[in-house]
Amino acid sequence: MAAPSVLQSFCLPWLLLALLFLASSASASSPLKKIPTLGVRGVLNPEKSEAASVPEDLQTYYYHQTLDHFNFKPESYATFKQRYMVSYKHWRGAHVAAPIFAYLGEESSVDDDVKAIGFLRDNAPRFGALIVYIEHRYYGKSVPFGGSQNETLKNATKRGYFNSAQALADYAEVLTYLKQKLSAEASPVIVIGGSYGGMLASWFRLKYPHIALGALASSAPILYFDGITSPDAYYNVVTKDFRETSENCYNTIKKSWSEIEKVAAKKDGLSILSKKFKTCKPLGSVNDLENYLYNMYTTAAQYDRPPSYPVSKICNGIDAEPNEGSDLLDKIAAGMFAYRGYEGCYQFKDFFSSETLLGWSWQVCSDLVIPIGIGNHTMFLPSPFNMTDYIKSCKDSYGVSPRTHWITTYFGGQNIKQVLKRFGSNIIFSNGLRDPYSSGGVLENISHSVVAVSTKKGAHCVDILPAKENDPEWLVMQRNVELEIINGWILKYYEDLLQSS
Amino acid sequence: MAAPSVLQSFCLPWLLLALLFLASSASASSPLKKIPTLGVRGVLNPEKSEAASVPEDLQTYYYHQTLDHFNFKPESYATFKQRYMVSYKHWRGAHVAAPIFAYLGEESSVDDDVKAIGFLRDNAPRFGALIVYIEHRYYGKSVPFGGSQNETLKNATKRGYFNSAQALADYAEVLTYLKQKLSAEASPVIVIGGSYGGMLASWFRLKYPHIALGALASSAPILYFDGITSPDAYYNVVTKDFRETSENCYNTIKKSWSEIEKVAAKKDGLSILSKKFKTCKPLGSVNDLENYLYNMYTTAAQYDRPPSYPVSKICNGIDAEPNEGSDLLDKIAAGMFAYRGYEGCYQFKDFFSSETLLGWSWQVCSDLVIPIGIGNHTMFLPSPFNMTDYIKSCKDSYGVSPRTHWITTYFGGQNIKQVLKRFGSNIIFSNGLRDPYSSGGVLENISHSVVAVSTKKGAHCVDILPAKENDPEWLVMQRNVELEIINGWILKYYEDLLQSS
Repeated sequence: MAAPSVLQSFCLPWLLLALLFLASSASASSPLKKIPTLGVRGVLNPEKSEAASVPEDLQTYYYHQTLDHFNFKPESYATFKQRYMVSYKHWRGAHVAAPIFAYLGEESSVDDDVKAIGFLRDNAPRFGALIVYIEHRYYGKSVPFGGSQNETLKNATKRGYFNSAQALADYAEVLTYLKQKLSAEASPVIVIGGSYGGMLASWFRLKYPHIALGALASSAPILYFDGITSPDAYYNVVTKDFRETSENCYNTIKKSWSEIEKVAAKKDGLSILSKKFKTCKPLGSVNDLENYLYNMYTTAAQYDRPPSYPVSKICNGIDAEPNEGSDLLDKIAAGMFAYRGYEGCYQFKDFFSSETLLGWSWQVCSDLVIPIGIGNHTMFLPSPFNMTDYIKSCKDSYGVSPRTHWITTYFGGQNIKQVLKRFGSNIIFSNGLRDPYSSGGVLENISHSVVAVSTKKGAHCVDILPAKENDPEWLVMQRNVELEIINGWILKYYEDLLQSS
Repeated sequence: MAAPSVLQSFCLPWLLLALLFLASSASASSPLKKIPTLGVRGVLNPEKSEAASVPEDLQTYYYHQTLDHFNFKPESYATFKQRYMVSYKHWRGAHVAAPIFAYLGEESSVDDDVKAIGFLRDNAPRFGALIVYIEHRYYGKSVPFGGSQNETLKNATKRGYFNSAQALADYAEVLTYLKQKLSAEASPVIVIGGSYGGMLASWFRLKYPHIALGALASSAPILYFDGITSPDAYYNVVTKDFRETSENCYNTIKKSWSEIEKVAAKKDGLSILSKKFKTCKPLGSVNDLENYLYNMYTTAAQYDRPPSYPVSKICNGIDAEPNEGSDLLDKIAAGMFAYRGYEGCYQFKDFFSSETLLGWSWQVCSDLVIPIGIGNHTMFLPSPFNMTDYIKSCKDSYGVSPRTHWITTYFGGQNIKQVLKRFGSNIIFSNGLRDPYSSGGVLENISHSVVAVSTKKGAHCVDILPAKENDPEWLVMQRNVELEIINGWILKYYEDLLQSS
């Protein structure tokens, strides 16, 4: 079992991984600087008190996975060990075609997923379901070529196999193999995923309906591609979250950027800022502070969920600061201190697992091109998305251009209501509308079985976190709705099965 | 315009391409010997009198196609020129969202397709449809790497990119590009294909519903994979076709194999056989004759269609031979002469386009593993399918093993009724039940819009050949049913479009 990372202690999501990662090498004006990664960190217990251990009933296996499913040259036939974990504890067995709940891993180690995701284990008893977690290729212990992820990703050839279509085919192979191994061919599979993993879950149902009966796609912004969603949408929601929480908080943040620049421009500006924000080490540049604050606000909005409600925390800190005796930046600092709690001094770096950081940075520069910029009406400085600059930045980093239209070519997205109204079935798109990524999610029912389950107060992936006694009613209801829908799919499936036998 | 090949003159389909190709290098007991290729040749005017020219209204274009859609290493970004042809003649235009009929090429040059396939041009006027034919990668003028197909396929690396998933992604890119270029994003696309191309059409609708509204999959044996259909099914249907035509014919053929072997075993056996079958050159081995006859019978059954009805032709020849004064092999030879018509002397080799031969041989040894053997109750010698031997033969030929489960992993097939009953829409699986490949086709309706249109008297791909004055009523009706279904899809699509606007 992996020890809780510093990240977990600080309750911070992987929101701005690419930003932080690339900010170091990219200039302040880099188009990559303001692009939040999809970030699944929030679905992993972010609360200190929630740090859980790997459940004992999970057994670890490795599948000899095909390196390249879509090519037949000799080197494509290489295999790598893909990790997956199974719990048989609640499974009623193959003889009654009891269901299989399969969690499709996203950009992280499966060790984190099994600790953080509650939906499967909370509901497996009711359904008598087998639980499976599958690790995404190039993360955790599922890195091809035998080396470390870091070394592997430095190689332009080796990282080429790292993309979502290959990952879906991996899941198809693992699940097909597992069903066969357990003689559970008749067991309906429900795939579940969050954030990027939620996209994978919905795409998996669309591409592999013969393997998965249905999908719960939690906070999956499958429409944040190729111009379907406005690039400004993400930061607009972040801003709305803060403004709805406190007009004063929103105004303070909005005014802070010029103040930070003003102070930074002073002779001892960085030292003043370091002191104000109680940094453990003196700030190397004003960018470090700005990046951190951007990260903190977007993260807070994305994971603005019970019981901690980080946006409220920040705004409470900001709003509590007296107007007399404290300047604008004291308020901002107070917001940060309130968010993080007392730490004596504060570090802005190394919050994130380097493997997620490294992996996701490549993914957004290859197939997962999610165009996010900052429009004119936010509490941030405007920074419109520019595709030309984005492509150049990726090319500078990786030598190849991102395929900006590939996701919509392969998975669709444009006119999704029209396309899926009479095609496909059994997908739940769940969203929390306080999550800035919900702006790229499916928020309306498409058909009677491709449905949207949104909560006004919800945040990123909150429905698939472990259920708790003190969960608010809307969250309890959201989960119940999802479970009833899934139950309906399974019952209908059994009916069909009986009719055909 | 390409001159009609020898094949066309001889009315012979590409049925046993792999057989003929591999028979030369494989031993007589090779498991590849008795495996008919899917063979689309029959959809290309096989009748001498039907040899058509490339229609003048077709314009040729080349799309810069991505070499590897599923990999992001630098060499995957290479492009090749993919040929496609468009006729605007009947198109009512983008402003009325007039439909697009797209023919998805199979294992041949698009030059052949545009001459042979009638469905698009026969029906484009009624629908005001744009006509598009797209050439399959590695055939015709769409061969990557700039060399000849022959040279390219000798290279184990270069042929790795040659598979059905890549071909489908090619079609997705071409159609997306074309719609955009013509501002025809709202135009519904109907994809049409025959035989292997029919499989591609149905799979395309399943994988790319956002690009194609529906698919006409003519004679697509999508269930002839991975144990779904019995390996014996193909030759069982061939046998049934002959037996239903003439019990005497069937019996004569059934008894002929031992007779051929008996004669061949004589000192001057090959010379006797050469004389009996009027070969232009003396037979080099008895296998040449046997292979040819196997090929002829299966081909005749597969393409047993009006107006020539080759099974009847052969059987008429066999049955017409007097019992007195002619032995068993005289009857067999008379069947062959009747089938081919008078040619003075007869050649058994080089009937087929080498590019189809070469390409298809690789395809059945990489992803398209169609297991066909000969059971105990046919008019042929039993030769059960043996996967181990098959894999070994492929490996001997190409250095890599075929991926025997990949088609069902990626596209499904097992329990297709259960899987597609509540998933997917708008696919017509059309079959003629005299076609031995119909045994691997979808012959029952799956849902109200995933439907089977079968004809008892029909053969391989006969519905998509050009309509003719003297077509039998069942064929006219089959086409009309297909057209009404397609029309229904398009009308429903326009309704949805109006409702959403």
